[in-house]
Amino acid sequence: MANPSVTTRIVLASRPSGKPITANFRLEQETLRDLVEGEILLQILYLSLDPYMRGRMDDAKSYAAPVAIGGVMEGGTVARVVSSRNPAFKPGDIVLSHSGWQSHTISDGNGLRKLDPDAAPISTALGILGMPGFTAYAGLRNIGRPKAGETLVVAAASGAVGSAVGQIGKIFGARAVGIAGGPDKCRYLYEELGFDAAIDHRASDFQTQLASACPNGIDVYFENVGGHVWNAVFPLLNDFARIPICGLIAHYNDDAGASRDPDQLPAVMRTILRKSLTLRGFIQREFADQRPDFYREAEQWIAEGRLRYKEDIVDGIENAPEAFIGLLEGRNFGKLVVRIAP
Amino acid sequence: MANPSVTTRIVLASRPSGKPITANFRLEQETLRDLVEGEILLQILYLSLDPYMRGRMDDAKSYAAPVAIGGVMEGGTVARVVSSRNPAFKPGDIVLSHSGWQSHTISDGNGLRKLDPDAAPISTALGILGMPGFTAYAGLRNIGRPKAGETLVVAAASGAVGSAVGQIGKIFGARAVGIAGGPDKCRYLYEELGFDAAIDHRASDFQTQLASACPNGIDVYFENVGGHVWNAVFPLLNDFARIPICGLIAHYNDDAGASRDPDQLPAVMRTILRKSLTLRGFIQREFADQRPDFYREAEQWIAEGRLRYKEDIVDGIENAPEAFIGLLEGRNFGKLVVRIAP
Repeated sequence: MANPSVTTRIVLASRPSGKPITANFRLEQETLRDLVEGEILLQILYLSLDPYMRGRMDDAKSYAAPVAIGGVMEGGTVARVVSSRNPAFKPGDIVLSHSGWQSHTISDGNGLRKLDPDAAPISTALGILGMPGFTAYAGLRNIGRPKAGETLVVAAASGAVGSAVGQIGKIFGARAVGIAGGPDKCRYLYEELGFDAAIDHRASDFQTQLASACPNGIDVYFENVGGHVWNAVFPLLNDFARIPICGLIAHYNDDAGASRDPDQLPAVMRTILRKSLTLRGFIQREFADQRPDFYREAEQWIAEGRLRYKEDIVDGIENAPEAFIGLLEGRNFGKLVVRIAP
Repeated sequence: MANPSVTTRIVLASRPSGKPITANFRLEQETLRDLVEGEILLQILYLSLDPYMRGRMDDAKSYAAPVAIGGVMEGGTVARVVSSRNPAFKPGDIVLSHSGWQSHTISDGNGLRKLDPDAAPISTALGILGMPGFTAYAGLRNIGRPKAGETLVVAAASGAVGSAVGQIGKIFGARAVGIAGGPDKCRYLYEELGFDAAIDHRASDFQTQLASACPNGIDVYFENVGGHVWNAVFPLLNDFARIPICGLIAHYNDDAGASRDPDQLPAVMRTILRKSLTLRGFIQREFADQRPDFYREAEQWIAEGRLRYKEDIVDGIENAPEAFIGLLEGRNFGKLVVRIAP
C-alpha cells in the first residue's frame, strides 16, 4: 500500500485545443498535511472517467467551473477511509466521493455517501448505480417519458449512460434501438443487453439501417453524442418526439470558431415547430430528489437480471489520461473506471 | 349584400418559391348548389390572416395538409348564417368557422362555435379571444411557465400572438420585454400595453439594447420569429430557460436548399446542454382542453383592462393576398383581419 501521506495526482497542465493530448496532463506528487479535528484521510480505489470531463478542461462558461491550470482533474471516486478524526467515519469505511484524479485526499466528510460493499460491487457506484445510471433514469423518467410500444433510440449505447438508457427504456415499455461503434459493441447490445436492434454508426449504410430498425419512426431520442448520429436520427423523429440531451461527445473537441458546414439551425428549428418536438438539456443533479427511487428500483432490476452492466477497468492512475483520450474516441467498451488501488 | 348563391374566393394558383407574390393567388367566383337537409349557408364576415398560412402554401410534410393547387386558401373566419336546414342554427346566428378565403360557403355545422355578439366584438374570436390569444395562453401556461419576477421576451410583440404573450406573461407575474419593428410599434407596447420594455429589432444597436433591457438574462423566450432576433436572444438565455416555439416567420420564405451561413447547430446544441434549456415546438390545438379556462380568464382580463388588443382591418376579400404578403413582412400593426362583408 502506498504511503498514505503522499498523494499522486493528475493535474491539468494546459488547456487542449480540440482533442486532448497527454501533454495536457501532468502527474504530480504531494505530501499531505496532518488531519485536523473533523477530517478524514481517503485512499481512492476507483476513479470514474466520463465524457463531461472534457468540458471542465475548457475555460468556458458552463454549469460547472473549469478545472484551473495546475488543478487536480475532477471526477467521481470510490474511496476507503484510511484514518479519521470525524466521528461519522471509521477506518475501512467505503465511500462515494468526488475526489478527482488522485490517490489520496483529505475530506471533511461533506458530500460523502457510505457504500455497502455487500450490496453491490463498489465500483458500480460510479456506473450503473451512480451518476451515469441515474442520468439514464432521470432523463427517461422526466423528459423522454417513453410510452409502451414507442421507439427509443440511444447512441453510445454500449457506454455507461447509453446501456442503462436502453435497458431502462425497455423496462418502461419502449422498443430500444442502440447505436454503437463496431460489430462487437452491437452484438453485445443485441445479444447480452436485450436491445431490440443495434446499429453500427460506422457502417456505410448506417442511415438506411437505422431507418429499417425504426419502421414506426422515433419517439424518444436520448442524445449523448450529436454529430452524424444526430443527422441520421433527426429525419426519423415522430411528431411530439422528446429529446433529452445529456451529452454531445461528438462536439466536445470542436474548436470555438464557427463550423464551415452550411447552417442547419433554421431547418432544425422549423422541424421542432412542425413536429412539436421537445429538446431538453439536463444534468442529473437537477432531479436529485429522485435518487432514492432510482437506487431502490435499479438495485431491484439488477437483482432480477433486467439491468446489466459492463465495466472497462484500467489499472493505475498514471494511465488515466490515455484512457480518457480513448473514451472520447469511443475506444472503451463499457463503463470506464480507473483502479487506483486494489 | 352579395348574391348568396355565388361565392367569391381566393384559390392557390401556384406555390411560391420564397416570398409569396400576388400571382400565387387567383380570385374566382362559383355558384353554390342548393342546401340539403342538415346544411347551412354561411356568409363570411371576417377572415383571419395568420403567418402559419405560409406553410400551407408549400407542398411539404407538416402537421397539416398543404392547400392544393386550385384549392381555396384556408383560414379561420367569423360568419353569419344566411339560411339553414340544420335545426341547430338559424338565420342571423354568428359563428366561428374555418371557412377559408371566401365570401360564402356551405357547412354541415360540424366544428362551428356560436358567438355572442353582445359579449365581445365578433372579430375578436379570430384574435385575442381566438387562436392567436389561445396560442399565447397555452404556450405560456404549459411550456414557458414564467415565475414571478422572471424575464419573458417575445418577438413580433405587437402582433396577434406576441401582444397577448407579453400581457398574459405580466398577469402571470413576469417582466415582459417586447421586440417589434419600428418606433411606433415599440411605443404602443410600452405606453399602451404596459410592456416593461420594448426594443426595435431594426435598430443598429438592437442586441445591446436587448441586453440592457434584460439585466438578469432571459428566462422565457416565446419564439415566433427566428432569424436575427433569435441570434440576439440566444446569448442572453439563463440556465433552465424555456422556449415555446409557435412560429418562425423569418424562415417561412426560406428556400429548401441549405443556408450558406456557417452551421450554428452544434453551438446551439451545446448551449441547450450547458444551460439545461427547453425548446418545445407546439400548436395550440394540442392543449384544446384548456380552451374553456382561456375563454373565461381572457374575457375577465379584457373586462378588467389588463388584456388589450389592436386590430388591423383590411376591407374586401380581393385585398387579402396583398395584406397577407405584407403580414409576412411585418407591415401590419395589430391582428390582421379581412372584413369581407359589413
